[in-house]
Amino acid sequence: MKIVLLGSGNLAWHLSGAFYEMKNEIIQIYSRNIENATSLAVKYGATAISNAELLSNNADLYIIAVSDNAIEQILKKTDFINKNVVHTAGSVSISVFNGKATNFGVFYPLQTFSKDRAIEFNNIPICIEASNEVFNKFLIELARQISNNVWQINSENRKILHLSAVFACNYVNHLYTIAEKILNEKEIPFSILHELIKETAYKALEMDPINAQTGPARRNDIEVLKKHLDLLSSRPELKKIYELLGRDIYLNYS
Amino acid sequence: MKIVLLGSGNLAWHLSGAFYEMKNEIIQIYSRNIENATSLAVKYGATAISNAELLSNNADLYIIAVSDNAIEQILKKTDFINKNVVHTAGSVSISVFNGKATNFGVFYPLQTFSKDRAIEFNNIPICIEASNEVFNKFLIELARQISNNVWQINSENRKILHLSAVFACNYVNHLYTIAEKILNEKEIPFSILHELIKETAYKALEMDPINAQTGPARRNDIEVLKKHLDLLSSRPELKKIYELLGRDIYLNYS
Repeated sequence: MKIVLLGSGNLAWHLSGAFYEMKNEIIQIYSRNIENATSLAVKYGATAISNAELLSNNADLYIIAVSDNAIEQILKKTDFINKNVVHTAGSVSISVFNGKATNFGVFYPLQTFSKDRAIEFNNIPICIEASNEVFNKFLIELARQISNNVWQINSENRKILHLSAVFACNYVNHLYTIAEKILNEKEIPFSILHELIKETAYKALEMDPINAQTGPARRNDIEVLKKHLDLLSSRPELKKIYELLGRDIYLNYS
Repeated sequence: MKIVLLGSGNLAWHLSGAFYEMKNEIIQIYSRNIENATSLAVKYGATAISNAELLSNNADLYIIAVSDNAIEQILKKTDFINKNVVHTAGSVSISVFNGKATNFGVFYPLQTFSKDRAIEFNNIPICIEASNEVFNKFLIELARQISNNVWQINSENRKILHLSAVFACNYVNHLYTIAEKILNEKEIPFSILHELIKETAYKALEMDPINAQTGPARRNDIEVLKKHLDLLSSRPELKKIYELLGRDIYLNYS
């Protein structure tokens, strides 16, 4: 299959790699920044372009893997009439393509991607939505090329899914960052938390997070909570986060 | 070694099991609630007591594994003069034993424990502090019986460690709970997030959380952030948590 990829960010980087490995041909990489497009295109012998008017007419599939608000900007400059096109955004409805494409849909891999970290697509949930039944089958086949974890999720539920992923991934990672910052001030290495972080994740998967909750807020251990707030007295933002999450845990179990 | 365990909560449960497996003798379990003491004592052929005055005089070690504020209550009722005693609390200073014990210290396993989940102690960091050098060696030997990850951490740093663990474990788990709640309202199974949760944890361990951050707040993607806040409009508490963490991420990278 001949694929054109629009975007050069973390997801574009990994997705193009996964399709290339499955013997598809990446023929073009589009990015507003030609250098970014080039650094990805050279990996596949693809052409790099920064002008949407230069998009090939001959691809079997156009994958728009850009930030959410950039999707509409691309669709202002070009259309995908008589073409197959998907976007990969959690929070953008399939209807963004209305009047702008013939076979259109969403191909949303639910994972966190960073350029400098290799990742296996095998188990990543791929969430599919399509404008018609034939294209739906096309997208399911496509998703199964790279993953055995394919879901059909409509636009409304995909938004909810994306929101839940922000809590379970982006915000979780930020709490790790806060923990590291607190430790580093006392020159305690972050690695001391590694086992705890792994067990916390596995526990939530195996026994459900609502049953896995432990700690002073869960026990409503006022003395410990007070000590921790005192330790954070010079960091009002962290204190607020500590209080708000602690209170929400307490309310959840009282 | 003959061990008396004070406490019958999650940590007491797992710690007594770990020492028992290493061929130590658990001779007594104390709990304010005799039924709780009994349910643990029967596992080891130990005596269950709920009156601190009945504590044996013949143990090689007394382990106080109760909630932080209950430690002082126990020390009001009894002392450990001419005995070896530790508590297991992250946020209680070693000085709680001053005038109340001869050889005293802290034995703090940095992990999240739930009674109905088996756990290997092997890699769990055990944080040791002791009132004197001889007892320090005693505690290190003891810790090495059950783990090959032994640290010496003083009371001040242990408090910081405990605080960081609340963020990296208790609060992380609460974010998982929030994600599950949001999904369940739309009847989307929590399992769809499993791969994301695992990868988020491993990424933070392998590339440092500050470098692993992704998502709309990191990119300052105002449109997505606004959509997510709209989705949370009927849940003011979650909206506040979303805003506060999102803002803190943005400030961290701007």
